[in-house]
Amino acid sequence: MPKVPTIVVCIDGCEPEYLEAAVSAGAVPWFSWLKEKGTWLRALSAMPSFTNPNNLSIVTGSPPSVHGIAGNYFLDLETGQEVMMNDTRWLRAPTILEGLERTGCRIAVITAKDKLRGLLGHGLRNSICFSAECAGEADLAPWGLGPITDMVGMETPKVYSAELSTFVLAAGLEILRHAGPDIMYLSTTDYVQHKFAPGTNEANSFFATMDSCLSALDRLGAVIGITADHGMKPKVDSNGNPNAVYLQEALDELLGKGVSTVTLPITDPYVVHHGSLGSFANVYLSDGKSLHPAMRKLILMPQVMAVLTRAEAANRFELPEDRIGDLVVVANESAVLGKRREDHDLSLLDAPLRSHGGLSEQEVPLLVNRQLENIAPARRLRNFDVFDLVLNHIGPRPL
Amino acid sequence: MPKVPTIVVCIDGCEPEYLEAAVSAGAVPWFSWLKEKGTWLRALSAMPSFTNPNNLSIVTGSPPSVHGIAGNYFLDLETGQEVMMNDTRWLRAPTILEGLERTGCRIAVITAKDKLRGLLGHGLRNSICFSAECAGEADLAPWGLGPITDMVGMETPKVYSAELSTFVLAAGLEILRHAGPDIMYLSTTDYVQHKFAPGTNEANSFFATMDSCLSALDRLGAVIGITADHGMKPKVDSNGNPNAVYLQEALDELLGKGVSTVTLPITDPYVVHHGSLGSFANVYLSDGKSLHPAMRKLILMPQVMAVLTRAEAANRFELPEDRIGDLVVVANESAVLGKRREDHDLSLLDAPLRSHGGLSEQEVPLLVNRQLENIAPARRLRNFDVFDLVLNHIGPRPL
Repeated sequence: MPKVPTIVVCIDGCEPEYLEAAVSAGAVPWFSWLKEKGTWLRALSAMPSFTNPNNLSIVTGSPPSVHGIAGNYFLDLETGQEVMMNDTRWLRAPTILEGLERTGCRIAVITAKDKLRGLLGHGLRNSICFSAECAGEADLAPWGLGPITDMVGMETPKVYSAELSTFVLAAGLEILRHAGPDIMYLSTTDYVQHKFAPGTNEANSFFATMDSCLSALDRLGAVIGITADHGMKPKVDSNGNPNAVYLQEALDELLGKGVSTVTLPITDPYVVHHGSLGSFANVYLSDGKSLHPAMRKLILMPQVMAVLTRAEAANRFELPEDRIGDLVVVANESAVLGKRREDHDLSLLDAPLRSHGGLSEQEVPLLVNRQLENIAPARRLRNFDVFDLVLNHIGPRPL
Repeated sequence: MPKVPTIVVCIDGCEPEYLEAAVSAGAVPWFSWLKEKGTWLRALSAMPSFTNPNNLSIVTGSPPSVHGIAGNYFLDLETGQEVMMNDTRWLRAPTILEGLERTGCRIAVITAKDKLRGLLGHGLRNSICFSAECAGEADLAPWGLGPITDMVGMETPKVYSAELSTFVLAAGLEILRHAGPDIMYLSTTDYVQHKFAPGTNEANSFFATMDSCLSALDRLGAVIGITADHGMKPKVDSNGNPNAVYLQEALDELLGKGVSTVTLPITDPYVVHHGSLGSFANVYLSDGKSLHPAMRKLILMPQVMAVLTRAEAANRFELPEDRIGDLVVVANESAVLGKRREDHDLSLLDAPLRSHGGLSEQEVPLLVNRQLENIAPARRLRNFDVFDLVLNHIGPRPL
């Protein structure tokens, strides 16, 4: 049970280099203090390195093999339909938030995009749970609070904006000030990281705004754990064009049409950042004899880092076997995987493609504004250990 | 049982492009006829795409999981010693040659290098089995034949020479002419392919000599099946230097010294061609907790195509679990894997490195100077099916 307000922040797409560059630039005094005095680690995210699987890993403290959310999007083998995994019926584990509420904690959950609100708030009854995207509709009446947009002093931000994330932290700060939550989970969006590289003015400025909110939360006495759902890497060729390989085209050429179905678990309704191009793909095959030819074709592609069978991928990446393909494909650090050229509207991209989903975007920050105690030396910390750290391993606040 | 003399030729390192280029150049009239009229296929070799595993696959008709020869070199887990796999005690399957001899066939086996003679000749009692490397010591007296060097009219060739392979085919021709064998297995060496790319004058000239021997064997009425143990690819960076990554150095840095042992199954006593740099490596780990960090480090290396656990590799590549590492590493098409810089004497290389061992060198020719009959349509032919083809699926000789 938390003794002081305890906050977990998931900075969407926070490649560790963003923080290192902002610290080096002197743009983020609170993060600089944290790096020098606090707990400043790196950890691996769950795979695939996408938003939904990792947010659910963080709030359940478990990998996708346990909680069931293996992507933003998947092929339901029972119905043969491709579906978004936003619905709570896909969730197979209770959340830590739900358990804490049952023991009497006051919980607030704020996400940037509305797509995550349902999953993160699953099982909560008396808690606050809203998205910045739909801030105007947030109902804080149960806690006796007025409209959140008034409290923050910001309009509902645009869905493609840096302010969507800023709003999350600013709203968290107002709720900590006025409503005395025991636990907050704040989850931002990676709009800025998809567009701007670490160390750019835009990125540093984004993290500077975040820094001032986090500093204020810290001054109010909160324990703060920070991690990310995934990193972010440039995915362009030497001309600056997306370095994409179109798996459905290649497999149709090899096997004929209709034998394979490629699904991209990065897919969600918000495609402007990435054109649905990420570094992880599922391949479903309608017959067993295509497995080896498909594996061979895929592994020989220079953009492909790994091709695993369902059983291998489930075991190695801790994924639910019934929610991944017959084959799982992971792209190289500089590459992304698509279906067919015509399935990806790249005209929407207004900056060189940056994306994620693979092993090269698995390393993320794991930060706490306290010293940690009683961590077993051999323990390999993951991003989804952050609730365990801030609840069960907190030592003194550094000076 | 063969009705006419039946010959299987393993052209060591015969990347399919060598034959295509030589045909295009008009250098090989017999191969040109074969391409137009005969059976001219491609097939996958056994993995790793090295000489010993594939020669044993060809003569046993089975993958290394059955015959046990998983490399030229391996770490004996029982003794902890790294040993050559030349000794017949490592062989777990009888050879097709041995079975044919028992039914009364006269068998001749000729290899380029002596390293293979013991394994290929295992179980043979009344047959001829010798190497071009030690042609002076070949004992053909059981068949009433004089010194083979006299019959061929060549001295014992140098071990690093094109003539070492030429001698194998020339000796096979003399034995077919004078001794009436039922079955011959002729296995050359890849000295030329390690040095010269497809389409070069040296390569075309080498294949032209081979072409005239094969044409003569064909004119004598033999059924001839031709395949290769592995392909061959350039393994250099943009400066023409070996594109090698030194796994032992990287793993020592990650895990500390003594935790991991890298073995390179390309290793054999003949290092001048390749400096022991191939595209396949085994990694043995002294503790289980290093497995995932090592896998992660290796898979993120740009020169690495695949990293598999022992069980995954045994299953996917049909390898014996007890003769491979805790991890199996496969390099990209343009890369090779080393231990430490100092373990590889690259001063011996007198041409830009060309090598093999990986998935990108698995495709090889599969040729027969007859039409084939009764091949199941779904059958995926392998190089080690060649004896089955020439013994059990022979149709008419094309015009």
